Amino acid sequence: MAVYTHLGADDFASLVAEYDVGGLVSAKGIAEGVSNSNWLVETTGSAGAVDPSGIPQTRFILTMYERRIDLDDLPFFLGLLDHLSAKGEPVPRTIHDRSGNASRMLGGKAVALIEFLPGVSIENPSEVQAHAVGKALAGIHLASADFTATRTNDLRPADWQALFEQCGDHLQEIAPQLPGTIELYLPRLIADWPEDLPRATIHADLFPDNVLMLGNKVTGLIDFYFACTDIAAYDLAVTHAAWSFSKGGRIFRPDIAASLMAGYESVRVLSDAERGALPLLAQGAAMRFAATRAFDWINTPGDALVQRKDPMDFVRRLEFYAKNSQSAFPARAG
Amino acid sequence: MAVYTHLGADDFASLVAEYDVGGLVSAKGIAEGVSNSNWLVETTGSAGAVDPSGIPQTRFILTMYERRIDLDDLPFFLGLLDHLSAKGEPVPRTIHDRSGNASRMLGGKAVALIEFLPGVSIENPSEVQAHAVGKALAGIHLASADFTATRTNDLRPADWQALFEQCGDHLQEIAPQLPGTIELYLPRLIADWPEDLPRATIHADLFPDNVLMLGNKVTGLIDFYFACTDIAAYDLAVTHAAWSFSKGGRIFRPDIAASLMAGYESVRVLSDAERGALPLLAQGAAMRFAATRAFDWINTPGDALVQRKDPMDFVRRLEFYAKNSQSAFPARAG
Repeated sequence: MAVYTHLGADDFASLVAEYDVGGLVSAKGIAEGVSNSNWLVETTGSAGAVDPSGIPQTRFILTMYERRIDLDDLPFFLGLLDHLSAKGEPVPRTIHDRSGNASRMLGGKAVALIEFLPGVSIENPSEVQAHAVGKALAGIHLASADFTATRTNDLRPADWQALFEQCGDHLQEIAPQLPGTIELYLPRLIADWPEDLPRATIHADLFPDNVLMLGNKVTGLIDFYFACTDIAAYDLAVTHAAWSFSKGGRIFRPDIAASLMAGYESVRVLSDAERGALPLLAQGAAMRFAATRAFDWINTPGDALVQRKDPMDFVRRLEFYAKNSQSAFPARAG
Repeated sequence: MAVYTHLGADDFASLVAEYDVGGLVSAKGIAEGVSNSNWLVETTGSAGAVDPSGIPQTRFILTMYERRIDLDDLPFFLGLLDHLSAKGEPVPRTIHDRSGNASRMLGGKAVALIEFLPGVSIENPSEVQAHAVGKALAGIHLASADFTATRTNDLRPADWQALFEQCGDHLQEIAPQLPGTIELYLPRLIADWPEDLPRATIHADLFPDNVLMLGNKVTGLIDFYFACTDIAAYDLAVTHAAWSFSKGGRIFRPDIAASLMAGYESVRVLSDAERGALPLLAQGAAMRFAATRAFDWINTPGDALVQRKDPMDFVRRLEFYAKNSQSAFPARAG
């Protein structure tokens, strides 16, 4: 939640001039994104960038890629946005510059100008909202079927293990029982991780802050910078872990979980193999976020602009999924 | 530069419903303000809040007052915005709620919904831009003549001294020569500070980041949270100190300074007494920012979200003004 790089009026004006979007009206750094800087940029608009109704767009998100993101992956991320938005999925498209580039360099860093979408992030979803989120997730899985670019998920079970190993003895400073909990569950996740389930281009990080809604409608899925080619049902498990708990993972909300699942399956029905794998995939999803949060917890300097997130929020989910596979994923009725 | 308080979708929706501005479309925390949190809020618009052309406004700045601001001062600050904007000055007006209140409480903190103005902050002003800034500053001095509310400046010479005293021995940790420099100049500023110059409602903090411009036009003067009733020429001195230097106060830009002065005097001509006092007032302005920055430097925890500003940037200006009163404020031609 920060703007890491300072851009001045001249930077904004010269950058905007590279796009057919009209002149600069306003630019405000926004407190979103942890691995990049973002500005909400307003322009006078131009026939060169119109919304689906043909109205010139005047608001954009300018993203500067600061760290964590391999620039070689940018064409995948930005191409995916264009692919999904062209299919009518609620995903912001990339505005291309006058030479057709989806990204440009500014002060030695890559930047992209991205469509602004309305909506706000929901924290305490209703069942109807969870249903809409599940539906939207399945929508991008189906719509990405003919997206030909691929990207390897660099946060798979062996990578979680490597992250925990890099944490070393510091893990027990987070919680004395943490090393034991990892040891209890991680080896089986690595051993049993399914390799034959249907794959898709997955978001892999569809937390509430990456979903914009207006009322019960999903208006935007954003922040695709963990997107990759991996198990579709794992993406559903990540979303399940992200949305179905409250109070730092202490309280499971079966109503929300069920609505999310039903919404997903209203668009893409899970196979029996996928459904059967969900308890394991959900443990994996919880382990994945426990791993990155533990690593960040230990490696984030105290004076960083980014608020550290508690890894234990996901250790609690991990234990819940390990002990409650029936109630977390009840058998389908009928 | 931060958002200190987390607001969720429900908070935004219920707050917006208290105003006649239409429904919530979007809300993004913006990286502006050091003593408050700010969000750029978009709504569907309503006939209840229209711009001067009668078009419903759909974008607003939501400000939450976090610290440093005495809530008893809010009616002064918000009333001043309304007074100046009603007179056509480029100042955002306050949107009043359905009961007519300029501010409301939200989660125990005061908030105000403020008009969004276009424009970006200029870092390296041209002479034409500096002229426009001087003109805009004089404009608010004249337009505030019949603003009847008053507020005492709580950052006058004796207050600078109190701030330095609270810094104690830590001052020399900032720079070994700092205590000596203060001792050299501060007593005379306190002794000679003029009490009989024309007064006005002054902005008192008109740095480039508090001025929005589009091209050569000033589109917004913002962040009036140091505004008070004090010497008009002191406000010009503050603005002079804020705009006429580059490289951390190392380089004086006489062209910018002269344009700023000329712009100011194109609207409000200084008396000989005011002009004669400017070298002293400018030293005072530099001392004032050296004092608050030194205090903040010493009292800002290392892990704060706010970037500390170097007090020495203004110690350099202080020394420049003390040694170069002729070149800083050349005699008027003719």
